[in-house]
Amino acid sequence: MARMDGTVARTPTFTDVLAAAARIAPHAHATPMLRSHTLDALAGCALHFKAEHLQRAGAFKFRGACNAVWALPDDIAAHGVVTHSSGNHGAALALAARTRGITCHVVVPEGAVAAKLAAIEAYGATLHACAPTMAAREVAAAQLQRDTGATLVHPYTDPQVIVGQGTAALELLKACETLDALVVPVGGGGLASGCALTLAATAPHCRLFLAEPAGAAETAASLARGERMTEFVPDTVCDGLRGTLGAPNFALLQAHGAQALVVDDADTVAAMRLLWTHTKQLVEPSSAIALAAVLRHRERFAGQRVGIVLSGGNVDLDAMPALFEIGRRAPA
Amino acid sequence: MARMDGTVARTPTFTDVLAAAARIAPHAHATPMLRSHTLDALAGCALHFKAEHLQRAGAFKFRGACNAVWALPDDIAAHGVVTHSSGNHGAALALAARTRGITCHVVVPEGAVAAKLAAIEAYGATLHACAPTMAAREVAAAQLQRDTGATLVHPYTDPQVIVGQGTAALELLKACETLDALVVPVGGGGLASGCALTLAATAPHCRLFLAEPAGAAETAASLARGERMTEFVPDTVCDGLRGTLGAPNFALLQAHGAQALVVDDADTVAAMRLLWTHTKQLVEPSSAIALAAVLRHRERFAGQRVGIVLSGGNVDLDAMPALFEIGRRAPA
Repeated sequence: MARMDGTVARTPTFTDVLAAAARIAPHAHATPMLRSHTLDALAGCALHFKAEHLQRAGAFKFRGACNAVWALPDDIAAHGVVTHSSGNHGAALALAARTRGITCHVVVPEGAVAAKLAAIEAYGATLHACAPTMAAREVAAAQLQRDTGATLVHPYTDPQVIVGQGTAALELLKACETLDALVVPVGGGGLASGCALTLAATAPHCRLFLAEPAGAAETAASLARGERMTEFVPDTVCDGLRGTLGAPNFALLQAHGAQALVVDDADTVAAMRLLWTHTKQLVEPSSAIALAAVLRHRERFAGQRVGIVLSGGNVDLDAMPALFEIGRRAPA
Repeated sequence: MARMDGTVARTPTFTDVLAAAARIAPHAHATPMLRSHTLDALAGCALHFKAEHLQRAGAFKFRGACNAVWALPDDIAAHGVVTHSSGNHGAALALAARTRGITCHVVVPEGAVAAKLAAIEAYGATLHACAPTMAAREVAAAQLQRDTGATLVHPYTDPQVIVGQGTAALELLKACETLDALVVPVGGGGLASGCALTLAATAPHCRLFLAEPAGAAETAASLARGERMTEFVPDTVCDGLRGTLGAPNFALLQAHGAQALVVDDADTVAAMRLLWTHTKQLVEPSSAIALAAVLRHRERFAGQRVGIVLSGGNVDLDAMPALFEIGRRAPA
């Protein structure tokens, strides 16, 4: 529910998604929907790709970051924003802050993808390195909040971020109103839970699937147990999906009845090569995982209209030879 | 000039380009024009990319092949078509033949890109291997003509192919009427000479530049000497640009006053990485060479509206690690 000052109360709703859509419209791209006859034939269903790799800053993350930045009252915004992010959210917040003319600090874990760090700096944000654990990231971000008065914009638990990401599904459903299923990658769960809000309000018969790397499959485990798992060490090429599912994200996904599909990295890289070859679109592994999930579970989507959010295109080109080796290990 | 039977007399004209545009409209994509603020800033001019990598079969070649196939009288078409091609034209002709329901034979030189050969076969054509010389290709194609009665559709000297390729410039000029310059890659010269016809008729003040690999720069040499060179051994990563400039293509380009810009492979690969990173579009080296030419000759395009034909996106992903090594050798 939207409050009078433009912030969102703890449990965001579809009304907030609509408010986000209006708020980000002057700044974000309405990305195209892409089709591929060849991939439809391979998958045995009608794939509708939402091209968020063509979003500003190269990922859907700009939607949530932009909504959070522009929802701040002027006096609060003046102190800037801060976040911790392994990449795409950091770049998105940096660019969103620039659209409003405010400062942005980004805490980045050591070992993050070089190309993504370069993008964050190119958008004018200040980088702060920390140890590659969630605890270290949160401590560093909290210190920056105290030091600068900046507002924390969490990559996926922030309610304004969640509803901002939900606008991706809103646009996709405008382009294709009759989707039978929507498949999105899941890491922290910002995109997934935002899309759950949109589906519940506008397409209740459309099933929501969460594509998750086998090396970071705590969402699948959490949904199966009915309790959020937080202790795990991610091991996946999907660098955008190494985060831990957030508490509000878990609650929204559980309430919605979302189903997780666990995907091996080899399948993800093979799907990425298919997307590159047949759509000529440079999507990152964390996006291709959604197609990989459909190809691995063809029987669940046979003959249906399936939406897939191609979440981002910020590929580390220098890491590609090693990535391709992983793809060769995919079973047929 | 178009003849009564739909064929084109030896010297094609802009009227033939218009006829080609109408003929291929039911089959070919009207590809989008793409922009990139980041690349504009790097180049110091306003770049207008014609996205022919999103054309059917992944390259502009479908325009010319489709026009040639559909211009044939029914009784001639019934015997099928034949060509020799290192890749994109073969795939384009195979697909064009399929749109008309006729057979297609493609002579391919040994050593051609595996991904491109697979595409030709996937479109239903029959492959015939030959030695990797132009003479061997022509001999094998002539034999197939005799054996099957199929019509030869030469990759770049066929007049219907030339005017078909000219429709790419026609569409780009519809999207941006005020181009100051157009930069296209040059190999055999089909695209370049077709675009010359279009520019001469519709945008006479728009200069035409030909981006050519240093390892296959016989077009630059031919234009400088005023005489067509045919003896050279190509050595370039631009596998689509290894052909020898055709005689009718040379005549059209010379008459038009087209200027060649010679580009090192290292610059081409660096430009390809820029395109991948900033537009998320998977274009092949033979396309990226046009951006590389602009970046290497910034002073000639400063502040102008520059069209660039992104000619194709059929990248050999397995060859990419080696390609990237070449890109690292580019001077800053």
